Amino acid sequence: MSYDPQNIFARILRGELPCIKLYEDEQTMSFMDIMPQTEGHALVIPKEGAAMIFELSPASLTATILTTQKIATAVRKALNVPGVLIAQANGAAAMQSVPHVHFHVIPRREGELMRFHATVLEDSAKLEQLAAKIIAALE
Amino acid sequence: MSYDPQNIFARILRGELPCIKLYEDEQTMSFMDIMPQTEGHALVIPKEGAAMIFELSPASLTATILTTQKIATAVRKALNVPGVLIAQANGAAAMQSVPHVHFHVIPRREGELMRFHATVLEDSAKLEQLAAKIIAALE
Repeated sequence: MSYDPQNIFARILRGELPCIKLYEDEQTMSFMDIMPQTEGHALVIPKEGAAMIFELSPASLTATILTTQKIATAVRKALNVPGVLIAQANGAAAMQSVPHVHFHVIPRREGELMRFHATVLEDSAKLEQLAAKIIAALE
Repeated sequence: MSYDPQNIFARILRGELPCIKLYEDEQTMSFMDIMPQTEGHALVIPKEGAAMIFELSPASLTATILTTQKIATAVRKALNVPGVLIAQANGAAAMQSVPHVHFHVIPRREGELMRFHATVLEDSAKLEQLAAKIIAALE
């Protein structure tokens, strides 16, 4: 999987496509997954253009995991969930759909099923409400 | 999920239990998962005692993700797989079984099913063979 600067996350980073943003700093950005696997599913991406973790610079990977920790902590607190799954897929064989490194932050609740990736488009008003809670929980 | 210093990964770190080791440095260790979800499934852990990502120090998290990148790169090269899934579960609701932070490095192949976590104990001779290949691919 090679890097395509027209991928949707690169376009979000350039402001060419909208997103429901949770957080942004110099090296990373976080926003809601619009096809969530569970309620509150967020994504964290580096600004550096890399398709898979193998090609990402150590500095950018470091920044991305620290933002992932921050978002996971806020998601847990905001949504009061007992579990959080962090996942990062590399390659179509691992179900990676967008060729720009991304970490999934997926709230997990006892007995709740997790949908397959990218199946149901969530209502944006609902995503905005969840995002407002998560942003409020970010220190 | 609170930290229990008697968890199996803490015991592996103290040398009280064996493991099929892939890599070790001052802050992290990597070894084969003995109940792999796919062939070549490895684990990466921080030496710092933390049950979930929320409590792990930024320095330790950084070291752990950099080792995870190193192991994922070696696994991909050694086993010549098209995909690698990285996963890190927090809380029993997210299917975390050992209360010590760990990153899964799971080789993914087209059409190959992934077993549920911790279901089948793999033959150790086979794990040793896979480990030798991965170690050889570590720069």
